[in-house]
Amino acid sequence: MSDITPLENLGEFGLIRRIQETVTLRQPSTRLGIGDDAAILAPEAGHDLVVSTDLLVEGVHFDLTFCPLKHVGYKAVAVNVSDIAAMNATPTQLVVGLAIGSRYSVEAIDELYEGMRLACEAYNVDLVGGDTTASRGGLTISITALGQVPHGQAVRRSGAQPNDLLCVTGDLGGAFLGLQVLEREKAAWSADPDMQPELSKYPYVLQRQLRPEARMDVIHELRDLGVVPTSMIDVSDGLASEVLHLCKASGTGARVFSENLPAANPMLEVAEEFQLDPIMCMLNGGEDYELLFTIPLKDHDKIKNHPDITVLGHMTDASDGVNLITKQGQPIPLRAQGWQHF
Amino acid sequence: MSDITPLENLGEFGLIRRIQETVTLRQPSTRLGIGDDAAILAPEAGHDLVVSTDLLVEGVHFDLTFCPLKHVGYKAVAVNVSDIAAMNATPTQLVVGLAIGSRYSVEAIDELYEGMRLACEAYNVDLVGGDTTASRGGLTISITALGQVPHGQAVRRSGAQPNDLLCVTGDLGGAFLGLQVLEREKAAWSADPDMQPELSKYPYVLQRQLRPEARMDVIHELRDLGVVPTSMIDVSDGLASEVLHLCKASGTGARVFSENLPAANPMLEVAEEFQLDPIMCMLNGGEDYELLFTIPLKDHDKIKNHPDITVLGHMTDASDGVNLITKQGQPIPLRAQGWQHF
Repeated sequence: MSDITPLENLGEFGLIRRIQETVTLRQPSTRLGIGDDAAILAPEAGHDLVVSTDLLVEGVHFDLTFCPLKHVGYKAVAVNVSDIAAMNATPTQLVVGLAIGSRYSVEAIDELYEGMRLACEAYNVDLVGGDTTASRGGLTISITALGQVPHGQAVRRSGAQPNDLLCVTGDLGGAFLGLQVLEREKAAWSADPDMQPELSKYPYVLQRQLRPEARMDVIHELRDLGVVPTSMIDVSDGLASEVLHLCKASGTGARVFSENLPAANPMLEVAEEFQLDPIMCMLNGGEDYELLFTIPLKDHDKIKNHPDITVLGHMTDASDGVNLITKQGQPIPLRAQGWQHF
Repeated sequence: MSDITPLENLGEFGLIRRIQETVTLRQPSTRLGIGDDAAILAPEAGHDLVVSTDLLVEGVHFDLTFCPLKHVGYKAVAVNVSDIAAMNATPTQLVVGLAIGSRYSVEAIDELYEGMRLACEAYNVDLVGGDTTASRGGLTISITALGQVPHGQAVRRSGAQPNDLLCVTGDLGGAFLGLQVLEREKAAWSADPDMQPELSKYPYVLQRQLRPEARMDVIHELRDLGVVPTSMIDVSDGLASEVLHLCKASGTGARVFSENLPAANPMLEVAEEFQLDPIMCMLNGGEDYELLFTIPLKDHDKIKNHPDITVLGHMTDASDGVNLITKQGQPIPLRAQGWQHF
């Protein structure tokens, strides 16, 4: 980066004006964006609203050693949009809170907002407000996203029935293996700052980790197909953890067939290089931001040829438990081994 | 505190369940609260929505040396409700993001939520969602508040006209002097940990600093009086800064009469003790969370006997500037000396 302008040169109000100038408003329901005590929205008639919030903390959720701020900004928006998608809703607005450590320059914050701006464009969502403050440590990003869904069509975690098909979008485990690559290269670089990180060999898993996408495409396609999931959640902590959430909320069990787990070839190659079990990567990896959902058996024909939807198995009575079924047909109880922050 | 339970004993999901169990939902528009990917709301027909977000950062906005966590929780909600009030709206829901440092116990987080719970009860607002994560530093609290207002009745900063009366609720400068007391006692205690902090002499200014209230009472009373402010903002950074915001957004000037500034006796006493100019405390102190607003001259009769509303002066043409008028009738240009985070 060539220019380094200290944030105190701008001040809080100057920074807000700078952000405000780059924002484009697209949603008809946005009446007033950044610049007042609150944004004003006029929700579309006949719709319910959904609201979700996420924090991304430097050193916990992202590491600027290997993650460009533009990607951090994009990902911060995408993971919030993913929560909106998981309700079967369409994102409309978001607000952003930033606590900024003293080593951040105006140019660094510009990079972060550029990533958020790109994601807002990709998901057609308006940045309508925020708060910026100093922090004593690193960067903390708080995003709250709003979305809308036709009245009564929001999909909860709790609606699955025994015999519903359990489906997932895309493929799994890639984001976790991308993180393994980044951490290995960081460790090597820490030991020898002259080394060149070996990243170009791993474009797929790195993209999965650094710049995930929310699956709004699938939400729109399901709507076009006339399929309303009976339950849904996004895969942030890992598939096993999310299956358990759906089962607990719905009062069901589930059978997940291990040979159905969707693996991408680049993920399998990296798993082999790291001598990690790809099944475990797919079950417990986390951060894939795919959608896990259930549909009635009668809708199977509508989705069976969809290239981005895989049927993992089906829901059962709660008394059957929540099991991974091995190739040999043996049930193994699923355990959540997702993120442990504390 | 007698019990100290490490947060890792509960884990993130355990903490969410613990919070969920203490939450009461009161708003008819809340369809689904904590526990899914997003909350579901059904906004009342004929209303606009307002949304605002605020971050409170340990070591920047609060200091646990002298601020009980219960008060921090209450204040975090109150300052967000204050932003909703400043739009002439009624708060309905909020979501809370917490980044929690490793030294916090379950009991400490319970205290924080108890404060938020009390504030939610006081302002009749539903806690409908959140996110909790570890932080590498102290505690960061992110709150996003939603409110509703009859369609078209949201009040912006930009609607003031020359000759409108400039009014403020309550009294000013107390929160700033409360902070001075706390910082003096902290410095004394740091020098001599055996000393007893001298706080009981200052109940009024300490309450103004530690547990401010949002002026929802005045919003309801103005509605009952049939008064719709032409512009409004809450006093968070200091009166001078907020007057300048209203004037800039509205394209006006203003005359603020120094002898009209509302001073409480306990504030005057502490200012004298600290040898601080009470006028400066009232103009630049910040954190009073009173409402600053303008009304048409014709509405003067409706508010002139209100015990909690003071007419500070009036708006003027922009070319007249933004001035404090001294007792001697001399204009002094107002300058913002509010908070500088960066």
